[in-house]
Amino acid sequence: MNRRKVVVDAMGGDDAPGVIIDGAAQAFKESKDIFLMLVGNPEIIAPLAEKAQLPADRYEIVAAMDSIGMEESPREALHSKPDASINVAARLIRDGAGDALLSAGSTGATVLACSDYIPRVPGVERGVLAAVLPANKSQKTDPGRSIMLDVGATLHCTANQLVSFAIMGINYARDVMEIDNPRVGLVNIGEEETKGHGELVEANRLLRGLEGVNFVGNIEGKDIIKGVADVIVTEGYIGNVLLKGLEGFADATVETGKRIYGKNIRSKLGLFMLSPIIKKLKKRFDYAEVGGAPILGFRKLIIKAHGRSNAKAIKNAMLLAEKAAGRNLAAHMEAQMKTFYMGMFDGGKGDGKASSE
Amino acid sequence: MNRRKVVVDAMGGDDAPGVIIDGAAQAFKESKDIFLMLVGNPEIIAPLAEKAQLPADRYEIVAAMDSIGMEESPREALHSKPDASINVAARLIRDGAGDALLSAGSTGATVLACSDYIPRVPGVERGVLAAVLPANKSQKTDPGRSIMLDVGATLHCTANQLVSFAIMGINYARDVMEIDNPRVGLVNIGEEETKGHGELVEANRLLRGLEGVNFVGNIEGKDIIKGVADVIVTEGYIGNVLLKGLEGFADATVETGKRIYGKNIRSKLGLFMLSPIIKKLKKRFDYAEVGGAPILGFRKLIIKAHGRSNAKAIKNAMLLAEKAAGRNLAAHMEAQMKTFYMGMFDGGKGDGKASSE
Repeated sequence: MNRRKVVVDAMGGDDAPGVIIDGAAQAFKESKDIFLMLVGNPEIIAPLAEKAQLPADRYEIVAAMDSIGMEESPREALHSKPDASINVAARLIRDGAGDALLSAGSTGATVLACSDYIPRVPGVERGVLAAVLPANKSQKTDPGRSIMLDVGATLHCTANQLVSFAIMGINYARDVMEIDNPRVGLVNIGEEETKGHGELVEANRLLRGLEGVNFVGNIEGKDIIKGVADVIVTEGYIGNVLLKGLEGFADATVETGKRIYGKNIRSKLGLFMLSPIIKKLKKRFDYAEVGGAPILGFRKLIIKAHGRSNAKAIKNAMLLAEKAAGRNLAAHMEAQMKTFYMGMFDGGKGDGKASSE
Repeated sequence: MNRRKVVVDAMGGDDAPGVIIDGAAQAFKESKDIFLMLVGNPEIIAPLAEKAQLPADRYEIVAAMDSIGMEESPREALHSKPDASINVAARLIRDGAGDALLSAGSTGATVLACSDYIPRVPGVERGVLAAVLPANKSQKTDPGRSIMLDVGATLHCTANQLVSFAIMGINYARDVMEIDNPRVGLVNIGEEETKGHGELVEANRLLRGLEGVNFVGNIEGKDIIKGVADVIVTEGYIGNVLLKGLEGFADATVETGKRIYGKNIRSKLGLFMLSPIIKKLKKRFDYAEVGGAPILGFRKLIIKAHGRSNAKAIKNAMLLAEKAAGRNLAAHMEAQMKTFYMGMFDGGKGDGKASSE
């Protein structure tokens, strides 16, 4: 059987499990190869799945009688609820029952549950939260998307951690986003190699010397949306505030648009004239189109969908997880991590001793 | 004589000194009280001033035969060129010859020259770079602008430094931006008081307890543009990347608009219909309207105008410097810094011993 098995936390997210089942129904229509393991309360999920007429041979319900709410403290909830759906889902991945994990639940709980159960890629110290951003297309061949990491798992990072983010980002960009030879940029307060604190200067030096890294150097905040790099490397504190800042800016723009819309006939007409373009722009900025953000660094891929995901976003996240699961991401990351650590000890000729540090 | 004396680095900025003189001509038309001390090469400035018909009794040229380019290393250039216009301007302020300093030159050189010559407000460890941002108006009475600090002078900050940023921001917002009881927000990765690293948790605790501070708590990236706080406190590393990130986003939006404009008749018509609103929006996001960003923490106010400032931006920056110079900002900051440090030692009853720490 050729089907990819995606383990889904069916109880995670603002509108779970209803929206998960609706997303599944859509995903089955678009892909013949996806198989879903829906983790959650069977008494709730089974009737919904039946009503949505999910094809019985393409999914399985795995019982998990507890779930974790968005407002709970992730660490405490995970420990007091061993049978929570995200814990059960992570253990399924650990046991080799599935190829990728998808959750629209609490980000903190997802990262922690995966850290508890799923082995990391050798050389990776901690799982990393990534975000896929819209980026200006300057050439027709530009992908129009970039990946930024970390966006919140590790607030302040060492140089080695920043390099590992670059390696994870490169492989995701190449294997999943299908970007050839992705360009890597390091977020800093200036372009010069000597800018920023010591770990940034050191990370810049390491990235310049690392084989297989198409490093464009330091990039500034203004470059992030401009598409000058496909992989945007940053410490989690910056990445988190920046990501939310851009989201806030986009929201504010939409808000302003709405206020304008109500204003007068002239504005209404103007917006109507522009509506095809607005639609196109909206599509590029819409998280539902991207589906979800990867959590990288584990042996299996984890996709985190937005808590407010609608059925379309869930469908896209499921298809993304299926696609990514087929790409041998962990093996590619491991190989490049090994190159990095070997280079540290013997200038690149390495004997592999340090490859699982 | 009631006139405010604004010391201007007439050689600083991409289009100096021409644009400085043009800005001065405009400023004299709008204000009867401004007096300008134009610091730079008299052989270049005098003919320009004459040609622009600047009124002879309202300005003075102070000779400085050197200047610092945008591409020079600020620290080295300041020391190798003691007679550079920004050094001369800072010494004029030190000697009490002027009420405020304005520069459109290198930010680094401006901050360092001021640090070398101008005394700080007691309790302030380092000068701070602020930025004035557009903010959503949720009510008619909202100012539609907020101040964010630091945006690049101190990359990682202690809790005390963050509190001092709040104090400087509050007083600027109240005295110059004319915001009653300004709301202070601390940029963090979540709203809970326990979020972020230790210095952030401590800064949150200190701000909650500090008299005269209208603290709204931690704010996230998404809140920054939304106007939930008038004073946005953050470490310089975050503030710098975020500010430039928002600028980049705004630029990208304009770029997209331009591309749309060339596209077809329907789009052109649509944009034409919306033009009055686009104009209004542009005005809110245009740095030329704000004039400049304050550098705070010194005994006298320093205004840093954008290097790319046009004459209108310079005019607005001059008027801003004049206005701010009349507000006793340093004295108000000092009083609140004293309250803060006294509170540390005796729970608020303080004997003033620690007021100049």
